[in-house]
Amino acid sequence: MQFTSERRLDDGVLEREFTLDEIPGILWTPASVSPPASEPVSASAPVPLILLGHPGGLGRMYPRLVDRARHSAAEGFASATIELPGSGDRPRSAVAEQARADLRRVLAAGEPVGDEIVDRLILPLVEQAVPEWRTTLDALLALPEIGGPVGYSGGVIAIGTRLAVVEPRISAAILFAGSFVPRALFEEARQVTIPLHVLLQWDDEGNDRQAALDLFDAFGSEEKTLHANMGGHTGVPRFAGDAAAQFLTRHLK
Amino acid sequence: MQFTSERRLDDGVLEREFTLDEIPGILWTPASVSPPASEPVSASAPVPLILLGHPGGLGRMYPRLVDRARHSAAEGFASATIELPGSGDRPRSAVAEQARADLRRVLAAGEPVGDEIVDRLILPLVEQAVPEWRTTLDALLALPEIGGPVGYSGGVIAIGTRLAVVEPRISAAILFAGSFVPRALFEEARQVTIPLHVLLQWDDEGNDRQAALDLFDAFGSEEKTLHANMGGHTGVPRFAGDAAAQFLTRHLK
Repeated sequence: MQFTSERRLDDGVLEREFTLDEIPGILWTPASVSPPASEPVSASAPVPLILLGHPGGLGRMYPRLVDRARHSAAEGFASATIELPGSGDRPRSAVAEQARADLRRVLAAGEPVGDEIVDRLILPLVEQAVPEWRTTLDALLALPEIGGPVGYSGGVIAIGTRLAVVEPRISAAILFAGSFVPRALFEEARQVTIPLHVLLQWDDEGNDRQAALDLFDAFGSEEKTLHANMGGHTGVPRFAGDAAAQFLTRHLK
Repeated sequence: MQFTSERRLDDGVLEREFTLDEIPGILWTPASVSPPASEPVSASAPVPLILLGHPGGLGRMYPRLVDRARHSAAEGFASATIELPGSGDRPRSAVAEQARADLRRVLAAGEPVGDEIVDRLILPLVEQAVPEWRTTLDALLALPEIGGPVGYSGGVIAIGTRLAVVEPRISAAILFAGSFVPRALFEEARQVTIPLHVLLQWDDEGNDRQAALDLFDAFGSEEKTLHANMGGHTGVPRFAGDAAAQFLTRHLK
């Protein structure tokens, strides 16, 4: 993990860009564990970490990511994210580009989105992204200012679901039920046992509400909560974001 | 409204039983607006009010009601409740008793609960209870220590839905999607416009989950939130109760 830039936000949060195996990422740490160079290094204990998921495109998603990171820092958490395969400045995959083109064509024609397209679009993304997040987690947890526990929050729900199954260091997850779910993921969902907080935008135009409800039903976790709200895909109300943050605070502190 | 008993809880909350038109009820007010007789009357402004719904049977429900009232008092709210028609010490109705017997028979036989039984069970209850709650609200708002705004919380969802439509003094409502909903109520639900916070116990044995989701979908409110949790009908997690309380605090303060 190589830090490539560093800047201080006005609330004292330290924002560092990094690359890891040529994947760009961003790490935000609260002022308590990242004081300015002019001050003595704090004796604070290492802080818990939240992995911030997103739909791909760090540049485009930056304003929302930094907003989430600042709120997490105020709760005493570090946050980190990496670019998804095939998004932002990362190389495109011919398979994914073809699947996206097919999806756009189907949506433009008003046809239902078949399982076959969803599988081509999502499964390779999950296969590639999940090991990258795990490698990133290795590197982040090796930093002295970051400890555990680790939470995961948002982004492509298929990636969050797979991570919740395979990565034992993640102890609670916020999942955003707003993207396509391959059929195969429903079986994996039954293997999830960590506490889950699932966000669903009830009138999300491009999302299959019934599939989201079915996925929520499938999760094996003893503690799972569904918060459904109005406001469309990108209109998660501030109070719903606050409630999700409270869920992670409850489980990571 | 006649107060029939008065006692002070250990957190300073004043609990008063009352009767109104022979209907028993309980009012809880925070210490700030109901100081002990030995202290000067506080100059505090009148407090907002939460009407506490329940499934009927004040005696049986008392432990949970007083718990909710104490939490509300800590937020600076008065709370009040009245007995439902045909429950507790109130006279039984032959129609309701017959409907309940028919319901028990159908459930024991493992048969689906038909609309006809639900209508006989719930519609007369709504018709009688809603005017009683409104009369109670008149009397409560006439007390100097109680102002507005007014919230409604829990109990029979058909009563809460009707109240949300017909009672303009209620400005926000928590509804518990855990009881039968007559078909006619779905049309009324579309007329609800106040902010709603709907609680659903996902694995509630005796409850029709799909009907609850359909009802949530039907509500006309621009702000409506569904919180679904594990734990069976009576197992609403503490954090879900806290989130519901936060919803009312957000809207009544």
